[in-house]
Amino acid sequence: MGKLLEQVSSPYDLKKLPVPQLQMLADEIRQLILDSVSKAGGHLASNLGVVELTLALHYVFDFKKDRLLWDVGHQCYTHKIITGRKDKFAHLRRADGISGFPSPAESQYDQFTVGHAGTSIATAIGMALGEQLQKNTGYRIQDTEKKPATSDERRETNKIVVVVGDASIVNGVSFEALNNLGLVKRQLLIVLNDNSMAIDATVGAMAKYFSKVRLSQTYEDLRKTTSNILEHLPGIGKSVEEAMERIKKSIRMVLPASQMFESLNVPYFGPVDGHDIGSLIKLFSALSQLKHPAILHVYTKKGKGFVPAGLQPGKFHSTGPFKMNGDQVQTLTDKDRPTFTDVVGKHLIELAEKDTRIVAITSAMCDGTGLPEFRKRMPERFYDVGIAESAAVDIAAGLARAGARPVVCIYSTFLQRSFDQIFQEVALQNLPVVFCVDRAGLVGADGPTHHGLMDIGFLRMLPNMVLTAPADQIEVRLALEFALAQDKPVVIRYPRDLVPPQKFVRAACSEPFRLGKSVVVRRAKGAPIAIVSYGSVLTEALKAAGLLAQEGLPADVINARFAAPIDQTIIALLGQGKGIITVEDHNLACGFGSAVLELAAAGNATSRKLDAVRLLGAPRRFIGHNSRKCQLMEAGINADEIVRTAKEMLVENQVGI
Amino acid sequence: MGKLLEQVSSPYDLKKLPVPQLQMLADEIRQLILDSVSKAGGHLASNLGVVELTLALHYVFDFKKDRLLWDVGHQCYTHKIITGRKDKFAHLRRADGISGFPSPAESQYDQFTVGHAGTSIATAIGMALGEQLQKNTGYRIQDTEKKPATSDERRETNKIVVVVGDASIVNGVSFEALNNLGLVKRQLLIVLNDNSMAIDATVGAMAKYFSKVRLSQTYEDLRKTTSNILEHLPGIGKSVEEAMERIKKSIRMVLPASQMFESLNVPYFGPVDGHDIGSLIKLFSALSQLKHPAILHVYTKKGKGFVPAGLQPGKFHSTGPFKMNGDQVQTLTDKDRPTFTDVVGKHLIELAEKDTRIVAITSAMCDGTGLPEFRKRMPERFYDVGIAESAAVDIAAGLARAGARPVVCIYSTFLQRSFDQIFQEVALQNLPVVFCVDRAGLVGADGPTHHGLMDIGFLRMLPNMVLTAPADQIEVRLALEFALAQDKPVVIRYPRDLVPPQKFVRAACSEPFRLGKSVVVRRAKGAPIAIVSYGSVLTEALKAAGLLAQEGLPADVINARFAAPIDQTIIALLGQGKGIITVEDHNLACGFGSAVLELAAAGNATSRKLDAVRLLGAPRRFIGHNSRKCQLMEAGINADEIVRTAKEMLVENQVGI
Repeated sequence: MGKLLEQVSSPYDLKKLPVPQLQMLADEIRQLILDSVSKAGGHLASNLGVVELTLALHYVFDFKKDRLLWDVGHQCYTHKIITGRKDKFAHLRRADGISGFPSPAESQYDQFTVGHAGTSIATAIGMALGEQLQKNTGYRIQDTEKKPATSDERRETNKIVVVVGDASIVNGVSFEALNNLGLVKRQLLIVLNDNSMAIDATVGAMAKYFSKVRLSQTYEDLRKTTSNILEHLPGIGKSVEEAMERIKKSIRMVLPASQMFESLNVPYFGPVDGHDIGSLIKLFSALSQLKHPAILHVYTKKGKGFVPAGLQPGKFHSTGPFKMNGDQVQTLTDKDRPTFTDVVGKHLIELAEKDTRIVAITSAMCDGTGLPEFRKRMPERFYDVGIAESAAVDIAAGLARAGARPVVCIYSTFLQRSFDQIFQEVALQNLPVVFCVDRAGLVGADGPTHHGLMDIGFLRMLPNMVLTAPADQIEVRLALEFALAQDKPVVIRYPRDLVPPQKFVRAACSEPFRLGKSVVVRRAKGAPIAIVSYGSVLTEALKAAGLLAQEGLPADVINARFAAPIDQTIIALLGQGKGIITVEDHNLACGFGSAVLELAAAGNATSRKLDAVRLLGAPRRFIGHNSRKCQLMEAGINADEIVRTAKEMLVENQVGI
Repeated sequence: MGKLLEQVSSPYDLKKLPVPQLQMLADEIRQLILDSVSKAGGHLASNLGVVELTLALHYVFDFKKDRLLWDVGHQCYTHKIITGRKDKFAHLRRADGISGFPSPAESQYDQFTVGHAGTSIATAIGMALGEQLQKNTGYRIQDTEKKPATSDERRETNKIVVVVGDASIVNGVSFEALNNLGLVKRQLLIVLNDNSMAIDATVGAMAKYFSKVRLSQTYEDLRKTTSNILEHLPGIGKSVEEAMERIKKSIRMVLPASQMFESLNVPYFGPVDGHDIGSLIKLFSALSQLKHPAILHVYTKKGKGFVPAGLQPGKFHSTGPFKMNGDQVQTLTDKDRPTFTDVVGKHLIELAEKDTRIVAITSAMCDGTGLPEFRKRMPERFYDVGIAESAAVDIAAGLARAGARPVVCIYSTFLQRSFDQIFQEVALQNLPVVFCVDRAGLVGADGPTHHGLMDIGFLRMLPNMVLTAPADQIEVRLALEFALAQDKPVVIRYPRDLVPPQKFVRAACSEPFRLGKSVVVRRAKGAPIAIVSYGSVLTEALKAAGLLAQEGLPADVINARFAAPIDQTIIALLGQGKGIITVEDHNLACGFGSAVLELAAAGNATSRKLDAVRLLGAPRRFIGHNSRKCQLMEAGINADEIVRTAKEMLVENQVGI
């Protein structure tokens, strides 16, 4: 750890340093981030870009009482390092360490646990309205801080700052919030951190607009803008409004201020250099005096200070462990098999080469959903709409209505944002849109904001939707072929994981998918129990069956393949007197097992005898950052838990043996 | 029916009329809409506003091959009348008549069944991309029309027009779509129908901007703008781009063109008078020649031609049957009891008067959720954020984080748009936000886009969330008091219905709500069956128990009150050898009954004997427009179905009797 950083354990230590030393501190922090992320993986490029910005914010504001909100949240590493968490930073994203996102449970300096983009402006508006309300009505804030400031202190000085990226601000939720910013009649500073990159390069008209502005700027221009703002901002007591007008006018001479924000009636300042700590400090000091919301547009360089990240910010957006080999980055993974994502990406290309109706759509997740090669090979059939999951689904619906075969590739957790569009524009119209739901299930180090544990539930309520999940590499291909041949919407879910080793591939899993039909993967003569798995957890089901067999307890293993519709033959097992254990990488509530229960209770099965249905899945609580394997263990979604459950059923419930 | 309208059974008949006769036709259509809506109820004000606009569109375009998309869709009456549905129009919104929203099942002139706002631009982009793709790759459109145009015909002439209101265009999905409009490299005309009203007056910065523009316009200005556009638009063959530039420049002299759209790089024309059919026809003819997307800003008057609707467009947005009594409107309802909405609105005021931390938030549903009186009495604690359901929830989360007690009032169907925000900003943070989920369950005449059949499912998956449903008027108050006293998020759901008659109010329902505790409403000695109802369907459960008792079949009735957490005493009934029938006004999939099954299967109940759990709820298919009562019957959510099920269980399954 660098010498200056050793002295800084809180923002108060930071404030003791003279401004000229802050750049040195920034360099030390950058080194710590690089060291830690190279070991543990994490969000690299975005964090390297905001070191100076974060230091300047903490230098000016006092976020023990002021409020700092990070949009998306993955760029909070510097913030964590200087708010008492530098020692735990080596254990970033590990079960025994700190999370990679803001976390009020970790620190009073964090306001919201976030990981999805575009929400911070709206939550900041809410917090500002709460403060206004407190003043107007005199209600007392029930303070959640460990050391609460007195009500008077907070009433006088509480400021709110939001840092939002150029990729997040184009999200619909951001826009809805900006459109309502007029509700706020007090200070609220929005720092627009413009690095022209989301996970992938930001797309869309607003991004083009930003980029046009950006390209027309020289460093000299940025300095001029900065001094211009500083020159005209009023001292305390002077008329803020008048000064604002002067600034606006003079900035307009340098550069047309952002029309977007002006048309939304949001005072806009900038752009300024986001790596010039001294100027940022002056700007924040001045802007903090405003009595109304304002936007400061700041340019930063994603991956600054680490050449490979600067060159490939997409790759280093969220990275696994790596090490430097001279100038070369060497990725450290034990990846001897492809991921489900890799396999989906590969087969989509092959299928799209044969069927020109196939179109791939994603929302700022091209790399993450395995589509870079698709984009390269078939750019005219690839659409990245930016962080706009809702619009992505509606555009897909329109494409399907016009005869195309859209494949929407979005992470399960982000697809939650498209629920209403999947309902109205896809399911209600019964349009053939295919959803490749990546990172479905527990996701590992990203933790609770990123788990995909609800997709089966919210999607299986929708009439017309077919829900399927491949168990292995071969089934990925079969599921895609099946999905693209349907005249209705089909969902394919798969985890953030490697495909199972080849030895797990079963002959039964090579049969083509037939709507609503499961396959028997292992049949044990006279088995009293059937393990019915949905998706890639088939490997755990097979392991469990193997372990049970070793103890002389035979069990069938069934690969359900479909969560909607459920195969009636699964229900029929109950009529044969078998006990059923359902296994899924999803919430127990509303999941695959729940669907099995509903059908069994519906009375149209051969038997409604339900004495022996047990569900395995994630419990109804948030599961923290950890390795995916540990999370599956914690949730009881693995072979050991299947074995334990099977034994319990056999002993306690006297399932026929 | 008017004389001209008698001659018009299709857009082809319309095109035969000389332009000067169209206003007369418009007047006749207005009369038909008034007659029909006064009898059947429906969306009045918005439809009266777009008569001329609709006629002009059909006069210019040929929507048998061109595509017309109505955002929200409730303004499609004129469109329906002139596309072969005028005779069925008297039966609007009735089971034997046509729906109040676009419906591809009714007509090839309709593209999407919609009812939620803000989606049309995105779906239009998708359709336009599909057309582009067809050209680029040569794939054949699988045409869904009854009389498909040949591929060549469509390739040459297919135009796409979207009509979107000023209230819808501020929605996040609209913005995400506008930001991606650059994907489209062909004609796509967006008609911005600006009447300055959503369900309630449009709010937010963009609305203010529109209103500023609007107020600065005289009729003379509108004429100037119109002639200016017409003068400069090119004939076929002339340079479109060049003409565009000329128009933009000359319009800017009259009025600064909308910065918003220009910053998003969308060519903008207008504003023009939306009731001047002749000019509209000329404009549409000219703008249809553009080879790229464009926006035409049109002013219309909501409720035009019907004085009461013009004066009270909020009231006449969606109205029940009424009749005219001279100049006075007399509402025709048999409403002898208040609605659940009324009761919620009343109690919220009383509670907010005692607790200054309580804040009400809605998204353009102030009237619909019973809040006008709250807004009037406590304007400083009322926020309407416009059609921005996602931001509404995030603002509430911020308020709760700042110590306030926000109550979010949104219809169940629209709350689907906030799913991800409820997950991340509310449930994950465990913030005390109260959700008043209005119109939960089947909604009657509005039909499938508006049913609230999924809220239990998507909300009960979320850790920390408490789900409750009052059964009657008294329980509404108790549920609100309970919810506001919790330190966690609570959902209160209730239907679009009158509260039950006083005779149904039971003593048991007067007990204060206790977290996760059901109440026994009727206990019959030795009853083999317990009817467990969730929410207002308690009345049906009681009716059923009465009917069963008449036949000598005793049944307990339990008011569950909570869907999360589920009361263990319900599961314990199984251990007592009782059969359970769950009843809910929600999808069977993922609903209350499903949660009961999950808990029963979890093995921590006194018995896991499930032979006798039967679920009643809506099936997994879309239920069309009809009266709410008929829909409940169709879905099997009523006393008769409970009785039938109880008898079946007693006979077939030999539940102990």
